[in-house]
Amino acid sequence: MPIIGNITYDELEIGDSASYSRTLTEEEILLFASISGDVNPVHLDPEFAGKSVFKERVAHPMWSGALISTAVANIMPGPGTIYREQFLKFLRPIKIGDILTVTIKVTEKLPRDRVLLDCSVINQNNEHVVEGTAKVIAPTEEIRIEQPALPNVKLESNGNGK
Amino acid sequence: MPIIGNITYDELEIGDSASYSRTLTEEEILLFASISGDVNPVHLDPEFAGKSVFKERVAHPMWSGALISTAVANIMPGPGTIYREQFLKFLRPIKIGDILTVTIKVTEKLPRDRVLLDCSVINQNNEHVVEGTAKVIAPTEEIRIEQPALPNVKLESNGNGK
Repeated sequence: MPIIGNITYDELEIGDSASYSRTLTEEEILLFASISGDVNPVHLDPEFAGKSVFKERVAHPMWSGALISTAVANIMPGPGTIYREQFLKFLRPIKIGDILTVTIKVTEKLPRDRVLLDCSVINQNNEHVVEGTAKVIAPTEEIRIEQPALPNVKLESNGNGK
Repeated sequence: MPIIGNITYDELEIGDSASYSRTLTEEEILLFASISGDVNPVHLDPEFAGKSVFKERVAHPMWSGALISTAVANIMPGPGTIYREQFLKFLRPIKIGDILTVTIKVTEKLPRDRVLLDCSVINQNNEHVVEGTAKVIAPTEEIRIEQPALPNVKLESNGNGK
């Protein structure tokens, strides 16, 4: 298994940045609905979504927040980080097949191991999808650990998709 | 199937509130890891989490953001809402079995159908888990539609849980 590690408060420097990319699939929309209970038809009902301002099904906007939190928790600062605050400004819808790239950047180091991060998410057309800021407590001790495996997930039909 | 409906901008009044409750299960932690790619061991590795400041596995903090977005998208204002901004302040960890209650409240009606919502999440011990604010574009037309069904999700073992 690969190793997951962190960057401590002392190691972080203003201007340091990290990126994380992921493609939106229909499965991810369905799973996000499952774990949140958000069954808004603009995400789940192709017919309703087709008549909406978006013209097709779109991701739950908070999925982009989940991707930002992944960049923070897995890459920079990584394991041992404590998440304190997140501001998100949703600028564009996310459609199936969109490739999102999250970039986070250290903008300020505060006392008591606090760090401010600028967060931006763009799609494959370089359009800004989300902008935001995060405040975290960075780890003070180095962590290197075997990366936990993800579960295998299977979805079964539910009668939507008319 | 039950019907999902909305509350239009004109119908919303300052002080209106809505709530949504959900219990954190281990399955939800695993699925959140799956859709975000966030494999931070504090969520997935019982041994690592046991030695952390949290003493046991905890939810991805952004899961609480997902619950807030569900209250906004499904209940108030509901379908037809366009999510613009979300601020989240994470105050406490969320543990398996915790019952979270999201409450959102209209604090301001702005021009062009914009609405500000106060957002709070408490656990079963009345402890504040998350506080925040949301800005949305409320729907202007009434929507009543059959609630889409959630998919059936199955998880398979992955070798964690040592």
